[in-house]
Amino acid sequence: MTALPSTVQAPPSAPRILGRCRELVRPALTEAVERLHPWVGEMAAYSFGWCEVGGAPAVAPGGKGVRQAFAVLGAEAAGAPGRTGVTAAVAVELVHAFSLLHDDIMDGDTDRRRRPTVWKAYGTGPAVLAGDALFALAVETLATAPGGAAGVRLLSTALADLVRGQADDLLFSTRPWTGPERVRPEEYRAMAEHKTGALLGCAAALGAALGGAPESTVAALDRAGRHLGIAFQAVDDVLGVWGDPAVTGKPVHGDLRERKKTYPVLAALSSPAARHLPALLDAGETDAAAALIEECGGRAAALAEARRHTAAAESALAGVPLAAGAAGELRCLLDFLVRRDL
Amino acid sequence: MTALPSTVQAPPSAPRILGRCRELVRPALTEAVERLHPWVGEMAAYSFGWCEVGGAPAVAPGGKGVRQAFAVLGAEAAGAPGRTGVTAAVAVELVHAFSLLHDDIMDGDTDRRRRPTVWKAYGTGPAVLAGDALFALAVETLATAPGGAAGVRLLSTALADLVRGQADDLLFSTRPWTGPERVRPEEYRAMAEHKTGALLGCAAALGAALGGAPESTVAALDRAGRHLGIAFQAVDDVLGVWGDPAVTGKPVHGDLRERKKTYPVLAALSSPAARHLPALLDAGETDAAAALIEECGGRAAALAEARRHTAAAESALAGVPLAAGAAGELRCLLDFLVRRDL
Repeated sequence: MTALPSTVQAPPSAPRILGRCRELVRPALTEAVERLHPWVGEMAAYSFGWCEVGGAPAVAPGGKGVRQAFAVLGAEAAGAPGRTGVTAAVAVELVHAFSLLHDDIMDGDTDRRRRPTVWKAYGTGPAVLAGDALFALAVETLATAPGGAAGVRLLSTALADLVRGQADDLLFSTRPWTGPERVRPEEYRAMAEHKTGALLGCAAALGAALGGAPESTVAALDRAGRHLGIAFQAVDDVLGVWGDPAVTGKPVHGDLRERKKTYPVLAALSSPAARHLPALLDAGETDAAAALIEECGGRAAALAEARRHTAAAESALAGVPLAAGAAGELRCLLDFLVRRDL
Repeated sequence: MTALPSTVQAPPSAPRILGRCRELVRPALTEAVERLHPWVGEMAAYSFGWCEVGGAPAVAPGGKGVRQAFAVLGAEAAGAPGRTGVTAAVAVELVHAFSLLHDDIMDGDTDRRRRPTVWKAYGTGPAVLAGDALFALAVETLATAPGGAAGVRLLSTALADLVRGQADDLLFSTRPWTGPERVRPEEYRAMAEHKTGALLGCAAALGAALGGAPESTVAALDRAGRHLGIAFQAVDDVLGVWGDPAVTGKPVHGDLRERKKTYPVLAALSSPAARHLPALLDAGETDAAAALIEECGGRAAALAEARRHTAAAESALAGVPLAAGAAGELRCLLDFLVRRDL
């Protein structure tokens, strides 16, 4: 066997891309968080995995940093150096952290990345405040950056969508499985676009805007991110029912146990064969429910949904001129996010 | 007795000015709130006193609308028609509503304007979400308005200050009355500037900026509002101890009972004669505490603080060219806010 000739580049690897972008963004993100009120700054740093409660340094798992990577790659796709997208990257990471903090309060989630959530560790009031501070800091970071004022418009649309998606997500849990008040798959899709897609799209669009991309490119990247959000959510839903807990870190059938209205369930419910599904779900018969959902085509429908929106994201990227290297890395991340262990 | 000749105008009256501005702003504010997710929009409308829980129309007492009036008058002071300031007015009213919603959660306050607070009426999670939505809507309203993108910078600074002030306010309650960790009057002043002054200043400054005022005028209006915030807080503190409950709507000695670190208390504590004050406060001996605070000069110091910052606000207004009518109305509101029943 011979080694690959050195002129052949290794294909881009998602972890490597994410790592490079995190490294590029980290100094500016740290600097922004240090501008916060010290108490609030500690909560923010804790949420990023940078410190323990009390402020002692820690290296706890942070997020993958997908949004910051999209911002950096958006700028690079516009032909600008990645650092041009750093302000956008900081803004979207701060918004993402804000939304996790507040969502954990609303959802009553006590753990995130194997640590107590901020509200659990610091109290609800302080966590509300820390979220507000991250939100304000995101807007300020972008508004005061050179050329950032126009980007605030993109960010504010994503923020409004984010809140709208969270509102729908909370309300879905109060609606019945069947009947005229049931949640339709298209409502679920809109929720996923708002709650997950809007900020992914905004990240890439904002990076491209700061990188000087024409409006059509900015809009295409936004669209790609929105489709990716829907695809990602559909995959997440499949993993939430059929994923290997050792890989996902989530309990078997966790989403079914919590009676979440996820895409596979909603899609299955449109089949007449699913008439016993609500009773199984309400009784906590999750094994039988999972089998029935699969039998009624819920799993296949969710995977088709994911494929459809992945293709739409790819086609949005293909429709505009993008710098080849960055476009390849964007596609690599896209693939990484929707083809997780399926 | 003869009637006043019709050429003599009645002096401007604060309630009339506030009413005129509320009327001018109301359609745009309503329209903005209607853009929200319906569930979230109901919580927002409830907080404005426009509806009951469930959505039935109501005419409950809303706020005075000081911030929206400052935005309108800021535009008029710049020589522009009041409607030029309406976008700014909507943005600052939304931010104010956001901050009330979240502060009520953090402070555990169950009543506001004689009705249950939003978190009490709808739950904590929904109230967090409604606050977030108002915040996002404020930024979006301004960012998408013609000429508003630059104003987002002003708003974002005020937002960051607001959160910083709230953080300090929460932390003050955990600090001791005396010793090196005590709250100093100058720290209290900074808290009041951030928590109350920043948004008042931003309102007037933003209105003026949209009205085309030069940067020096925008900065002067911002400064005036910040001083007003400090003066307002000092007056509020005096009323919180010595105010007539029939007028203030607050219980006698309410602030003392809650052991709040207000200006009169902090100022009194710097006198050696106040050495028994912490014990009286901790024991809930509010009559004796109020008398001792007065004896130690706490009341006089707070009133002097209010006068000093009212004068500074007036001098900021006097230092820049402003349209006479609007400047007179701004001064009238200033007077109205700091000379309440003292």
